[in-house]
Amino acid sequence: MSNEFYEFPIQRFITPEKFNKLKEFAKGKETPFLIIDLDVIKEKYLELTKDLPTATVYYAVKANPMPEVISLLNDLGSHFDIASRYELDLLLSLGVNPDRISYGNTIKKRTDIEYFHNKGVTLFVTDSIEDLLNISAGAPGAKVFFRLLTECTGSDWPLSKKFGSHPDMTYSLIIKARDLGLIPFGISFHVGSQQRDIGQWDEAIARCRYLFDSAKEIGIHLKMINLGGGFPANYLEPTNPIIDYINEIQRFLSEDFKDAVPILYIEPGRSIAADSGVIVSEVIRVSKKSKNTPNRWVFLDVGTFGGLVETLNEAIKYPIFIDKHGYEEEVILAGPTCDSMDVLYEKYKYTMPSTISAGDPVFIFTTGAYTKTYSSVAFNGFPPLKAYVLE
Amino acid sequence: MSNEFYEFPIQRFITPEKFNKLKEFAKGKETPFLIIDLDVIKEKYLELTKDLPTATVYYAVKANPMPEVISLLNDLGSHFDIASRYELDLLLSLGVNPDRISYGNTIKKRTDIEYFHNKGVTLFVTDSIEDLLNISAGAPGAKVFFRLLTECTGSDWPLSKKFGSHPDMTYSLIIKARDLGLIPFGISFHVGSQQRDIGQWDEAIARCRYLFDSAKEIGIHLKMINLGGGFPANYLEPTNPIIDYINEIQRFLSEDFKDAVPILYIEPGRSIAADSGVIVSEVIRVSKKSKNTPNRWVFLDVGTFGGLVETLNEAIKYPIFIDKHGYEEEVILAGPTCDSMDVLYEKYKYTMPSTISAGDPVFIFTTGAYTKTYSSVAFNGFPPLKAYVLE
Repeated sequence: MSNEFYEFPIQRFITPEKFNKLKEFAKGKETPFLIIDLDVIKEKYLELTKDLPTATVYYAVKANPMPEVISLLNDLGSHFDIASRYELDLLLSLGVNPDRISYGNTIKKRTDIEYFHNKGVTLFVTDSIEDLLNISAGAPGAKVFFRLLTECTGSDWPLSKKFGSHPDMTYSLIIKARDLGLIPFGISFHVGSQQRDIGQWDEAIARCRYLFDSAKEIGIHLKMINLGGGFPANYLEPTNPIIDYINEIQRFLSEDFKDAVPILYIEPGRSIAADSGVIVSEVIRVSKKSKNTPNRWVFLDVGTFGGLVETLNEAIKYPIFIDKHGYEEEVILAGPTCDSMDVLYEKYKYTMPSTISAGDPVFIFTTGAYTKTYSSVAFNGFPPLKAYVLE
Repeated sequence: MSNEFYEFPIQRFITPEKFNKLKEFAKGKETPFLIIDLDVIKEKYLELTKDLPTATVYYAVKANPMPEVISLLNDLGSHFDIASRYELDLLLSLGVNPDRISYGNTIKKRTDIEYFHNKGVTLFVTDSIEDLLNISAGAPGAKVFFRLLTECTGSDWPLSKKFGSHPDMTYSLIIKARDLGLIPFGISFHVGSQQRDIGQWDEAIARCRYLFDSAKEIGIHLKMINLGGGFPANYLEPTNPIIDYINEIQRFLSEDFKDAVPILYIEPGRSIAADSGVIVSEVIRVSKKSKNTPNRWVFLDVGTFGGLVETLNEAIKYPIFIDKHGYEEEVILAGPTCDSMDVLYEKYKYTMPSTISAGDPVFIFTTGAYTKTYSSVAFNGFPPLKAYVLE
């Protein structure tokens, strides 16, 4: 890891000037906390809509539901993909129009569906007959799209088989939706979060084409493909720039659909929010376990259950910056609690200058997504991660 | 899994009468929520103090810090092992005397140590020279005990190498503590939570004896062994009863210390709190992913990030009871959020009656420890797990 900020890989989004401002802002505040730079949110949203102007962006609220983030994206014209009625309440309280909201969780209670329907939401995802029956009862006439099961190999935070159904079952659901008086609107899939293999979209798009054709044969005209999320943020492991993803996805779509490319929805969360965030933490302790051990342990005041839950199994590797110079040593990084699952990185070795000591500030970049709301409510008594918007 | 409650393994702590009362109490309350039976807390505490009367119990507050649990244990005479100044504030607000409190986290800021000292706490754990220097500066004259590094194989929720130091370094710390004007009081270790191999205590106690002897040679008389936690609760995987643990530990102590067995502290958390809790959840959905798949997915309204974080890697397997009859089928169990890490059990197959359907209540036993406070603050918008005391 570099000790010079201008060499630091994250400077593309947080400029040296912005970083100085951030450090000034952080002064005197009790660590740990997250700072969100709304300019980055705006930049990422505009970049995506410029590069893929044919798609409607449904921002995945779960990535970062801070009111300032939602309001900014709402002003920019974004739509929203949400996971629960609690997120719905939040969005409505911020003035988001329900016709810009998609209920994107396949696992919902009938009472939840009724709640969304009564609030004016008309777009629902589904992947099972039981759910479809509930939608037809609780939200008659709604538009539904069908989540395809994908394997999503190659993603850093995969989605397994929890969501979606196989194409044969999806086909049955499409017919059933029509028979229930719902509007079979399109197909969705999700290739896994922080997906680094662009080719994963190819197969999924081909399956969509197959289902569009099958439905057409029985008189059902599907109109929309929801490409899901999966676009990457800038963590330590390198990825292609998002424009490469978009170019390839457009090529896959042209190959499969020629001139009749469907309406496109995308559900970015991580790729919009992650780069906007910096967690400011502090070194609590640097210590060795025995006289002859090669690696020192560096304990931070933020850990796995205080906002960095995506460090589980060392899945996501955040860029970490310490404003100190010295011989770079490999260290083991851990959080502040009495739980040994609260070790951030032990297999993957970060390096840190030999001069670090208790009290040094530590800046953890690309932490704008899946951090604040994922922290525990009172793990070992520690409060959830605080968050500020950079002013 | 049995469908008859009287055959259900957990009946030892939650009797059929108690379960009926619990079901009555649960009626009309929105799931999911945790119910704590204080009678079980009391029973487990009294059982432990009866079986091991020579030990002082320092209840590990992190396991379940509900005010009613703390107050009950305080009234019963328990001492408390705590992990943060937030837990200290809680205990003091409930009237716990600071001389019954041990600051049991080796990872602490100097300001935390001063905070504890100013509130009257005089007992601190340590495992590094840097921490010891802070204790000497922030809490002059305090009693300190030294955490030994243990390997803790055999536990379901192991503690790795995050805590403690090797015996050679511990020996140096003992000397340094005396030189700094602190009171070198004893040795602690922790064999890992839900430890199922009783023999793990044997080696640790032998190391304590070695350190007691080494310290004595230079005129330092250590007085206390803190046996840590690790006593099991009643999950699906069988364990020996706690009395077997106690008998074996007493045998190890007699072998190593003969008639001069030191003062004993123990830090039970899980073994006191876990059996007192039942999470009441509800089936949201039972569905298949394709027409030919062998296993149905059962989605509950509580998941990994809503209180069941110890299901990560399927580490802890809770006894789950459904009050329905039918052919028992293997299922995959998952939580309600849009995150695929929120799958509870996929490798280990629970069986459930073929008759289950959306809306059925699901009772998850032995959930009194490491659940409520470990739930996320707003994961996918979902609120943290609610908790009640059974009345």
